[in-house]
Amino acid sequence: MIGITLPDGSVKQVEAGTTPMDVAKSISEGLARNVISASFNNEKVETSTPLNTDGSLVLYTWRDDAGKEAFWHSTSHIMAQALEEMYPGIKLTIGPPIEHGFYYDIDLNGHTISEKDLPAVENKMLEIARGKHDFKMRSVSKEEALQFYRDQENEYKVELIENLEDGTITFCDHDTFTDLCRGGHIPNTGIVKAVKLMSIAGAYWRGDENNPQLTRVYGISFPKQKELKEYLELLEEAKKRDHRKLGKELDLFTFSQKVGQGLPLWLPKGAALRERLENFLKKAQKKAGYEMVVSPHIGQKELYVTSGHYAKYGEDSFQPIKTPNEDEEFLLKPMNCPHHCEIYKSKPWSYKDLPKRFAEFGTVYRYEQSGELHGLTRVRGFTQDDAHIFCTPDQLDEEFKKVIDLVLYVFGSLGFEDFTTQVSLRDPEKPEKYIGDPEVWEKAEQAIVSAVTDKGLDFVIETGEAAFYGPKLDFMVRDALGRSWQLGTIQVDYTLPERFELTYKGSDNELHQPVMIHRAPFGSMERFVAILLEHTGGNFPLWLMPEQVSILSLSEKYENYAQKVLNLLENNEIRALVDNRNETIGKKIREAEMSKIPYMLIVGEQEENDGTVSVRKHSEGDIGTMSVEEFSEMINSEIEKNSVEFNV
Amino acid sequence: MIGITLPDGSVKQVEAGTTPMDVAKSISEGLARNVISASFNNEKVETSTPLNTDGSLVLYTWRDDAGKEAFWHSTSHIMAQALEEMYPGIKLTIGPPIEHGFYYDIDLNGHTISEKDLPAVENKMLEIARGKHDFKMRSVSKEEALQFYRDQENEYKVELIENLEDGTITFCDHDTFTDLCRGGHIPNTGIVKAVKLMSIAGAYWRGDENNPQLTRVYGISFPKQKELKEYLELLEEAKKRDHRKLGKELDLFTFSQKVGQGLPLWLPKGAALRERLENFLKKAQKKAGYEMVVSPHIGQKELYVTSGHYAKYGEDSFQPIKTPNEDEEFLLKPMNCPHHCEIYKSKPWSYKDLPKRFAEFGTVYRYEQSGELHGLTRVRGFTQDDAHIFCTPDQLDEEFKKVIDLVLYVFGSLGFEDFTTQVSLRDPEKPEKYIGDPEVWEKAEQAIVSAVTDKGLDFVIETGEAAFYGPKLDFMVRDALGRSWQLGTIQVDYTLPERFELTYKGSDNELHQPVMIHRAPFGSMERFVAILLEHTGGNFPLWLMPEQVSILSLSEKYENYAQKVLNLLENNEIRALVDNRNETIGKKIREAEMSKIPYMLIVGEQEENDGTVSVRKHSEGDIGTMSVEEFSEMINSEIEKNSVEFNV
Repeated sequence: MIGITLPDGSVKQVEAGTTPMDVAKSISEGLARNVISASFNNEKVETSTPLNTDGSLVLYTWRDDAGKEAFWHSTSHIMAQALEEMYPGIKLTIGPPIEHGFYYDIDLNGHTISEKDLPAVENKMLEIARGKHDFKMRSVSKEEALQFYRDQENEYKVELIENLEDGTITFCDHDTFTDLCRGGHIPNTGIVKAVKLMSIAGAYWRGDENNPQLTRVYGISFPKQKELKEYLELLEEAKKRDHRKLGKELDLFTFSQKVGQGLPLWLPKGAALRERLENFLKKAQKKAGYEMVVSPHIGQKELYVTSGHYAKYGEDSFQPIKTPNEDEEFLLKPMNCPHHCEIYKSKPWSYKDLPKRFAEFGTVYRYEQSGELHGLTRVRGFTQDDAHIFCTPDQLDEEFKKVIDLVLYVFGSLGFEDFTTQVSLRDPEKPEKYIGDPEVWEKAEQAIVSAVTDKGLDFVIETGEAAFYGPKLDFMVRDALGRSWQLGTIQVDYTLPERFELTYKGSDNELHQPVMIHRAPFGSMERFVAILLEHTGGNFPLWLMPEQVSILSLSEKYENYAQKVLNLLENNEIRALVDNRNETIGKKIREAEMSKIPYMLIVGEQEENDGTVSVRKHSEGDIGTMSVEEFSEMINSEIEKNSVEFNV
Repeated sequence: MIGITLPDGSVKQVEAGTTPMDVAKSISEGLARNVISASFNNEKVETSTPLNTDGSLVLYTWRDDAGKEAFWHSTSHIMAQALEEMYPGIKLTIGPPIEHGFYYDIDLNGHTISEKDLPAVENKMLEIARGKHDFKMRSVSKEEALQFYRDQENEYKVELIENLEDGTITFCDHDTFTDLCRGGHIPNTGIVKAVKLMSIAGAYWRGDENNPQLTRVYGISFPKQKELKEYLELLEEAKKRDHRKLGKELDLFTFSQKVGQGLPLWLPKGAALRERLENFLKKAQKKAGYEMVVSPHIGQKELYVTSGHYAKYGEDSFQPIKTPNEDEEFLLKPMNCPHHCEIYKSKPWSYKDLPKRFAEFGTVYRYEQSGELHGLTRVRGFTQDDAHIFCTPDQLDEEFKKVIDLVLYVFGSLGFEDFTTQVSLRDPEKPEKYIGDPEVWEKAEQAIVSAVTDKGLDFVIETGEAAFYGPKLDFMVRDALGRSWQLGTIQVDYTLPERFELTYKGSDNELHQPVMIHRAPFGSMERFVAILLEHTGGNFPLWLMPEQVSILSLSEKYENYAQKVLNLLENNEIRALVDNRNETIGKKIREAEMSKIPYMLIVGEQEENDGTVSVRKHSEGDIGTMSVEEFSEMINSEIEKNSVEFNV
């Protein structure tokens, strides 16, 4: 008999040789129907693997990430079988699961395949799936494995096997198909009910462009047809909401090959949107006792040698800027903190002056490979909504909590209701990755855990994910499409105050070292606007919309009245524009809908005579006729109603 | 007889050999008393030089720059004589007049001289002056001149003379003193009534540090004692108003050796002041139809090759920023215009869309030698209140005038009432200094002259002062100390639209090239704040003050009431702070005066009971007791009263 410990801590005594599926059945038939993979003592096993020692067992269903991984891994076997049968002589290489689905890299060995061939492959795969073939692992000797692939003239698998140790090599069989495989499958092919092959791309063997080019086929699969349909709809929606597409449609930003990749140019509407976000945060920060500062975008190389940034970013980033004087070299700033440290250092402080909270919308520059750039989410220059708080060690806990309050206020005001947090600590086994004394790291880590605990936040701890200069708390928000984004960060830093020799005079009249908090609720203006665009699909909260109202005149005759309505709205601090073009009202409405303008006011003879406007709401249609005053009140109370209060 | 043409165009027939002083006497005895120097046919002459041909004569008094130049040049002869008599054996080198006064560089040949010795030199000079010795020029042969200085063992003058052509060499004698000199003196030493030797500095012979070090004595002199007194007072006031000193006292900005020279760090009060100025301009710009954009602080090298900036700034400025990819090189932007051209280029435009007015507070970087840096007026990174207007050629005239209106509004609101303008045109004889077609230059120059003429501005035309890409209109304001500063610039540019191939579709459906206007009313935020500080001595217009009111509690007992007053003021949009320290009210008032805070509200038992405040005005004292509401109204109506209206 062996003892199997389950996740709830209970221990089941079973006979040696019992499989994970047997354990599932012993718990309930319902569970057994849903279990598709398992781990034993933190290692992937098959649901059919006999267990022969005491240990911890976790059973996974489709709802678990590990379940999906096994599902997609297994489907890539099915795709490989289908492709081998349809394109005889192709050579398989590797075929892993990925975040959404799986791929297989194949040497087509003379065959060609295009997107239009994929539906036939899908059908073949579903035919195989319906056969309900079990996935069965077996050990093979290195020689046997090499011989198997030498017979197929598959030099890729041979190369893979040559790097493996004899005695650790396994094959997986299902139906007539065999593949070199480490394991981790669903019980049988029949569980795969829906398949979609997404695209075909080129890829180099082992990612090296000197190696032969392979064909990569991407796919995804689901246990129910309905789930595939929902996934494809979500994908369609995400494509519509792609911030690069919306940014262009809404005239928010652009890029220029001449200015350079990854360097956004904000167009008037985008710049106004960004300014509105900045003003919103400035107002909250003022209430919370922050002071704005302004610092340059470069600094002497020595500044970043002192801060440690040069050692961190030096070689991979923008290189030092030489000058006509060879003793003077500058760097584009990758972070604002060294400048704020020097601002702090510009005068002596007493403990009575602290905390000092220096905020700046500071634009920083970091080089990224051009292949890694993506719209506003991966750029080479971005503006952090940065601030650095210098406080006494005693104040750290309270200051950290105040920053959490500010971040939550920001998220609430922008409609990000669903978020989790991650406490990133250092990897104690890799001290070379971090700068600073392990003892001060310990203190900083404790302060963060204590603050999130006191604030009652949901948090996970990730070891090894800290910044190089200190531990941090990151906020991960879930957007309207269910995707998770890292937004907002708060970091404790005992290191920079030491490197910059920052001090304050304590109540004991001695000099002490302040603690520093780095924080950015938005993270960066670029990334935040991108995420907000994809979250809202461009339908920003009303207070933030570039244009809140479009006044559509029924004909050019009503231009004067339209202008009068505009002035009245502007007096009520409502942002509006007049569409007085010589176009049909239908076209004007369609275009205002396209531009996501929340309200349309139609003005014609009737409205001019009555001193009213006919109101249409974006994507809802007509909501009646009213006076401009009534409409203004409606708008302003809608904004009021949806605004979150910020209490300091 | 010869004909002497005077500046009013009249011609006087006089005998050959008549001197400028004779001509002055023939006009009026009063004039003759005031004439101190002259030019004949645009060349300096002595007032005693006999005139022997027809020609134009200009007579100068102390009020003319040329008069001052002769006055100070002559005084440097007097100082040289005094020093030679007091320190026998010293070797004179050169002693020119400068903007304010004169200096002489001397090899002291073993003597020492310090600031404390200067009053004795001044006395000696005044003694010589009182002798009313005439300055008399005489020609000498090169050999004679060389022998004179060889006898004195003065290798400097010998070197100077060796480089002169025989037949052109003149000496000037007065009293017992003789100097190598080209001429241009006042009639006699007696006119110098007041002398002040300002300082002693080191200087190298011919400015080359490999040459012997000389001693430079700076001085200034006046025809009246009263004028010297006023000058020294002005100097004292300018020292008090030095923006570097005030910037420190008022906590506005700082510099850090580590961040780098010439790279200002704006402290909270300075950043708030700057933001207030920016918001002021943003509001006016919005009214005038400008749209804000945001662009990065770098661009690919190619961008500046296209714009011509690389050719202009390349070698002397910050060098290109290399990256891990050797094909990619970037430059810190020295100007915002190339970015705005690329923003314009991001979509097609019709003539109906123009003018487009893109504005940005864009921070640019230009390398300056460290010796040329000075506070906020000469820096290496500065933020331009920049905008670029893209318009059709037909719109240029009107747009240019609208920009003039905006600049005048800005000056009026900031209290710069006294200004002149300068139209800077190209030097047609140095075409290599400019980029672009002479024909388009011609058109642009005409547009500017036409706009300033129509607006009725006082202007001078300066040939050769244009920017390298186009002609410009500069505004020169006179500050409270009577000093002139260049502030605000408007530039027409046909060149960049051509280089960037910018177009719009005209009413003829063909593509045309827009005209571009560059403009910056402040010039740069850094320089503007510096000048505003020196102009106002830190007593900014009330609407701009970092803190408008300081609430001084008579003791800590009145903290709550002080806080209540603060809240009431903040509700009325008045910026205030509470000084609730445990200090005497006298000390609190003194410190608020030092910080230039316009109003102080004193609160104690009486005020709390009555719900009032006792008001003191900066540098004026007590102005009575009133309710907070009355005080708020007073402040806001003071701001209102002094505000300038901006009509678009």
